[in-house]
Amino acid sequence: MRAVPSLEEIRTRNLATLLRHVHRDGPVSRATLAERMGLNRSTIRALTADLAAAGLVSEELPGQTGRAGRPSLMVRPQERHVYVVALDVGGDRLAAARVGLGGAVLDRSETPWPSGAFDPEDVIAALVAMARSMIGVAASGSVCVGVGVAFCGMVREKDGVVRYGPNVGWMDVAFGAEMTAELDLGLRVAVGNNANLGALAERERGVGEGLANLIYLHGDIGIGGGIIMNGELLGGEGGYGGEVGHMILNPHGRTCACGSQGCFEAEAGELGLIAAAGRTDPPGQAAVDAIVEAAARGDSAARDALHQVGEWLGYGVASLVNIFNPSMVVFGGVLREIYLSSAAQVRRRVAVNSLRAVRERVRLRTGALGGDATLIGAAELAFTDVLTDPLHTLARTATRA
Amino acid sequence: MRAVPSLEEIRTRNLATLLRHVHRDGPVSRATLAERMGLNRSTIRALTADLAAAGLVSEELPGQTGRAGRPSLMVRPQERHVYVVALDVGGDRLAAARVGLGGAVLDRSETPWPSGAFDPEDVIAALVAMARSMIGVAASGSVCVGVGVAFCGMVREKDGVVRYGPNVGWMDVAFGAEMTAELDLGLRVAVGNNANLGALAERERGVGEGLANLIYLHGDIGIGGGIIMNGELLGGEGGYGGEVGHMILNPHGRTCACGSQGCFEAEAGELGLIAAAGRTDPPGQAAVDAIVEAAARGDSAARDALHQVGEWLGYGVASLVNIFNPSMVVFGGVLREIYLSSAAQVRRRVAVNSLRAVRERVRLRTGALGGDATLIGAAELAFTDVLTDPLHTLARTATRA
Repeated sequence: MRAVPSLEEIRTRNLATLLRHVHRDGPVSRATLAERMGLNRSTIRALTADLAAAGLVSEELPGQTGRAGRPSLMVRPQERHVYVVALDVGGDRLAAARVGLGGAVLDRSETPWPSGAFDPEDVIAALVAMARSMIGVAASGSVCVGVGVAFCGMVREKDGVVRYGPNVGWMDVAFGAEMTAELDLGLRVAVGNNANLGALAERERGVGEGLANLIYLHGDIGIGGGIIMNGELLGGEGGYGGEVGHMILNPHGRTCACGSQGCFEAEAGELGLIAAAGRTDPPGQAAVDAIVEAAARGDSAARDALHQVGEWLGYGVASLVNIFNPSMVVFGGVLREIYLSSAAQVRRRVAVNSLRAVRERVRLRTGALGGDATLIGAAELAFTDVLTDPLHTLARTATRA
Repeated sequence: MRAVPSLEEIRTRNLATLLRHVHRDGPVSRATLAERMGLNRSTIRALTADLAAAGLVSEELPGQTGRAGRPSLMVRPQERHVYVVALDVGGDRLAAARVGLGGAVLDRSETPWPSGAFDPEDVIAALVAMARSMIGVAASGSVCVGVGVAFCGMVREKDGVVRYGPNVGWMDVAFGAEMTAELDLGLRVAVGNNANLGALAERERGVGEGLANLIYLHGDIGIGGGIIMNGELLGGEGGYGGEVGHMILNPHGRTCACGSQGCFEAEAGELGLIAAAGRTDPPGQAAVDAIVEAAARGDSAARDALHQVGEWLGYGVASLVNIFNPSMVVFGGVLREIYLSSAAQVRRRVAVNSLRAVRERVRLRTGALGGDATLIGAAELAFTDVLTDPLHTLARTATRA
């Protein structure tokens, strides 16, 4: 049995719930908020006033509705006043964005990063510089309420330690703690697995909006997986659940960066594609794009490579559909292009190798957020504190600014 | 926002919670119940009195405790008065048990059932006869409060339709509805996937007690999976999640009963073992036992077959450990014997093919409930109603008796 919450706790919870509605859905009328939250209008008015006084939301009259009576005021997130910094460490690039409350990307930058150059110190210095420059150009008086990083590897979320990043060569790097110290904003830098964050982003703001059972596959150098089951991200015992890139599809197949053989990512990821096409390009989006374009021009080696990789992608997806019974599988990162160029192979494998009852209702889709799913997921991670306790988080961060 | 529950709803919820404690943990003192439920002793006394009046629990003085003061009365489930019937449809047998409130198996029977003879009408007739005979020998005045069936295939739980049972040849059989009609007890017969029920049973009363992240693998003709993540059974969109038997491990491997090739169950299950050993025995526990015993006697064909199947079992387990990051993998059904005879192969594969961060803390174990995990899980399914609304369920069932 839980203790009865105090009035202060109830108020904090209601403020957080109201702000989440506004953050997720953009401008919302007080009347809609009252209905969704099951509270009366005077309570909504008081909560909104508190959030407005703190600079988190503003209120305005709606456009002409044509209805009689006094219109309900619209509550809008103060997206230029309250923002987070989102960072993304991919296998071949670093990216950063400033994202306002409400989810609008206010500013964005990206730097190619050659694989093989992922010394943690260099990466951290570059990320810190990118973050500082974004904070520097923000409007005076605006407040950064969080920093979130999407990382292409296994992350222990509670302290941001990277346990393993096979494609950048990291093992047990105190990434979150060092980012927090170097950035020195008085804010804990939160770190999450990039595919998990991409899954949340596509579920919150993308192609999987509102779905309870979703698999997001993120193609980078490897293949990351973010799996949402019954509305929750699959964590497992240590929070490393969803590493579907190391599902074994071909026991005597290609050697994987993890040391194993025939992993899903070794066969169906961009390294598998580049090898199958007989190329020696450095891995990255450009290498995948070059093969896809060559195939479109009629280059048979490129087309055969895409078909071969599509077969493996299909085997992997068929297995995942059998194991998880998801309602959607979303292809993000470079898997978007690989899937679009080999969809016939993938769909055929799913038709042949998935059980009927689970195959019947699964949809295969490309992500709606493109290459930014992981970055947008990192922003959502960074918003966690302000969406849990709006006034205290803002007071704490604003004092420092 | 939820509506505030009525006093009647609160009472029902408290009665259910108390009964679940007694059902799970056996005789419990009123003092312990008060502590666990965060309620005062007079409330516990009133709740216990209601359950005792209905014949669900009894109260008694504990044995000599050596402590001063009035001892707290022990609350004990009325296991001979309130029971369920559990049924289990495996690939080579039918089993039934009468299980008392509290989980004691009061009566048990089993019938070998040749694969190839799984006509739904015959199976239903046999199960109904087994159930009736068990109810017939129950003490007069005792009450059957539920019937649960574990089935070796994909089951739509809400209506008990078997969508697919590859190893018994069923597709879209209205199994639950027909069992309910034929048994005619005025009770809905609940049907669940056998491996899911086995997972719950091993988590509630077996080797995985209290674990939040557990994978249960049930070897029958095929391999069923029951996956508990974050305390909940993995359901997926249609409730068919966890069908790990059809994860693809060897795309050009053995043909599976599902029509695909190289599925986990085709390579690592008993059919794979029998084929690898060059035998023609009909599938079933006896065939597996014969191979295990031959290997123990030094028969090299049997030993090689177990090692080969152990390799595939290891690949499958390594993949599942990578995908799910569980704290335990439990081998049940005939996989118990297969695992025990090939543990070195399985463990080596997990060491080589699983990522370090997830491998570090996973334990591989045989089930504590032996061949009865699925049957005990079916009993727990059958107890659902009485453990959700004790008094109404009992009143409804007792009226009929």
